[in-house]
Amino acid sequence: MTEVVAGVDIGGTNTVFGLVDRNGEIIAESKLSTASYPEIDDFVDVLGESVKRLIPGKKDFVLKGIGIGAPNANYYKGTIELAPNLAWKGIVPLAGKIKDKTDLPVVITNDANAAAMGEMIFGAAKNMKNFIILTLGTGLGSGIVINGELVYGHTGFAGELGHTIIVPGGRDCGCGRQGCLETYASASGLVRTALYMLSESKEESSLREMAPSELTAKKIAEAAADNDHIALEAFDYTAEMLAFGIINAIVFSSPEAVFLFGGLAQAGDLLFTPVRTYVYRNIQPIFRGTVKVLPSGIPESNAAVLGAAALAWNELSY
Amino acid sequence: MTEVVAGVDIGGTNTVFGLVDRNGEIIAESKLSTASYPEIDDFVDVLGESVKRLIPGKKDFVLKGIGIGAPNANYYKGTIELAPNLAWKGIVPLAGKIKDKTDLPVVITNDANAAAMGEMIFGAAKNMKNFIILTLGTGLGSGIVINGELVYGHTGFAGELGHTIIVPGGRDCGCGRQGCLETYASASGLVRTALYMLSESKEESSLREMAPSELTAKKIAEAAADNDHIALEAFDYTAEMLAFGIINAIVFSSPEAVFLFGGLAQAGDLLFTPVRTYVYRNIQPIFRGTVKVLPSGIPESNAAVLGAAALAWNELSY
Repeated sequence: MTEVVAGVDIGGTNTVFGLVDRNGEIIAESKLSTASYPEIDDFVDVLGESVKRLIPGKKDFVLKGIGIGAPNANYYKGTIELAPNLAWKGIVPLAGKIKDKTDLPVVITNDANAAAMGEMIFGAAKNMKNFIILTLGTGLGSGIVINGELVYGHTGFAGELGHTIIVPGGRDCGCGRQGCLETYASASGLVRTALYMLSESKEESSLREMAPSELTAKKIAEAAADNDHIALEAFDYTAEMLAFGIINAIVFSSPEAVFLFGGLAQAGDLLFTPVRTYVYRNIQPIFRGTVKVLPSGIPESNAAVLGAAALAWNELSY
Repeated sequence: MTEVVAGVDIGGTNTVFGLVDRNGEIIAESKLSTASYPEIDDFVDVLGESVKRLIPGKKDFVLKGIGIGAPNANYYKGTIELAPNLAWKGIVPLAGKIKDKTDLPVVITNDANAAAMGEMIFGAAKNMKNFIILTLGTGLGSGIVINGELVYGHTGFAGELGHTIIVPGGRDCGCGRQGCLETYASASGLVRTALYMLSESKEESSLREMAPSELTAKKIAEAAADNDHIALEAFDYTAEMLAFGIINAIVFSSPEAVFLFGGLAQAGDLLFTPVRTYVYRNIQPIFRGTVKVLPSGIPESNAAVLGAAALAWNELSY
């Protein structure tokens, strides 16, 4: 008999889910269209059925629990609250509804926290008690582990490092304020930086041939690989700002490692090399040399399901 | 029979120590001159003897352990490391030496962490699992509690919020960098702000009658109480910068409360009112209204001994 949990990652467009054993092996995987179920109860019905259908005909798999990563998820309350990219409005008691439907333990948190748990249980942080993972996508998400536990804080919403203000009065942020880390250190931040540099400099650049709405982090990385100077400078500045966010997080919790994950982290050395240099150069001296900046140990394609599954395994182990 | 612990606070000039029972009552208290013992072994001998002498003649007090707050103390290693204000150079294994001398459990951390523990065990954070205390003296120290535990991090030096960089390229800091929070939000930061404002403005101010070396936070507070406009503006700017440090800490750990302690916090409403206003105004919206900014619940005069004693009680409870 093999015990498995379901890992579920809810995104605005799709929900991916899979069965994962204790060793982090994905036994089966599937997805459904989140956007097709604007009524939460319909979504819960379909998700519950779909997860059950993943269990192979053989009787030797037992589903023990369900872990869910979702935007604006509150771990304590089991809710999704005011998520701008989801059709379900207000405060949705998702964990409770799925528990009622499946009669299984259900745990929910945001995707960056799930990524941290995945890293701790199945990834490169297996032996670490203190680390931070930064997910660099459209925004900057973060999961923080201290003393071997995910930090949820008093409200359940702790770990919003993307909304550390690093430039007072700086770039407009989606949170309504200015100068938040994610407006600089994220895929969209990189694009904003490149646009700014195109405006300031008269240097030739292949990026001048693209409409701003078509400019992506991937295209800037490609240009940088072709030695486009503006693209290289944009990466360097992004790395400096990201390093700045990292050194200010280090004085808080003194982690053993900071993991970078997500679209922008795929740029590899183009990002990691300058980030490590700026962290080393600008860190408070007593922490110099104590923190590693590392890529995630979990393949991007499996991370969402494994992270959510890790959340369930972690909960079951208590 | 009454069980007690010794709480010891080591400062550059004096070391104060006392016997404290489980309820936080100080049974006896004394002090000795730290600076008089440049040899660590002499200090350990004298401290050990002095603590024993505090135990009243009656046989009904039993000393169970010793908690120590000291600058640059490492909780994990039991050491004081490279403390600029102490005569003992290099890395001093203080906890081990005192343990050898007294045959009692000894625990050591820095004074801000001890203050956090004092607040949690004896003060205004008794029922809190997630809070931060900021000690506003010459510098800005911090103690962070998450999930009911003090945060020491991978190195033992976590919780250096005074060295969050909030103004890139800003004021010179003792750590060798620029723009750290403590260069703005501390007693000495307030003095620097007042001097800057005296330089920028031509407004009349009683502060113009004092030599910069004589200007203190207390004198600025007195001038502010007399409606001196420069002094009031200096407090307002200090509060804004402190609030800025606080809102960036809140996105990290989402605490229930942030306590302000130490010399500058004695200014009371002059500091707390604008800090609360700026925190409320500038915080990330999902945290708005979730965090209290409070004065410490422990009288300044007892805090050092109670904090160190709380550290020992906390350790003994495991």
